[in-house]
Amino acid sequence: MNKYSLYIGIAAGVCTGIAMLPQLYKILKEKKAEQLSISMMIILLSGLGLWIFYGILKKDYPVIITNGFSFLINLCIIFFSIKYKK
Amino acid sequence: MNKYSLYIGIAAGVCTGIAMLPQLYKILKEKKAEQLSISMMIILLSGLGLWIFYGILKKDYPVIITNGFSFLINLCIIFFSIKYKK
Repeated sequence: MNKYSLYIGIAAGVCTGIAMLPQLYKILKEKKAEQLSISMMIILLSGLGLWIFYGILKKDYPVIITNGFSFLINLCIIFFSIKYKK
Repeated sequence: MNKYSLYIGIAAGVCTGIAMLPQLYKILKEKKAEQLSISMMIILLSGLGLWIFYGILKKDYPVIITNGFSFLINLCIIFFSIKYKK
């Protein structure tokens, strides 16, 4: 892999990773999450898990690291969504 | 790329792609999107665009196709979010 594509991959992963942060912030601030769909979150979590596996198979580090980060953020979103829905 | 990783990549992309569909469906059904953060959507769109670029650089077809699909779904979500926020 050349350095150029490594940087693009990291930039891509940073964007799709931090894209989840405002959602997490909103849930924590407003303490409600009725409009978020839990089904979406579960499917997204499965997809991110598969991306990590794919990255490992292809030894593609930007894919592994950035999807790993997104996976953690998404886990937090699911946790607080369920907590505040009750 | 071996066939095994191709299937994993496609499965991963299908999950992260369809994960956005329930959100789009919810917005269309409820005709409101106050709880969705537009900033998140814009950053996510940039990230998906960069993933497509990364996929092209690495000739990684699962990455290109699935992020292209997510990009389109996300564009629809942004369009209707802005429409219903007004």
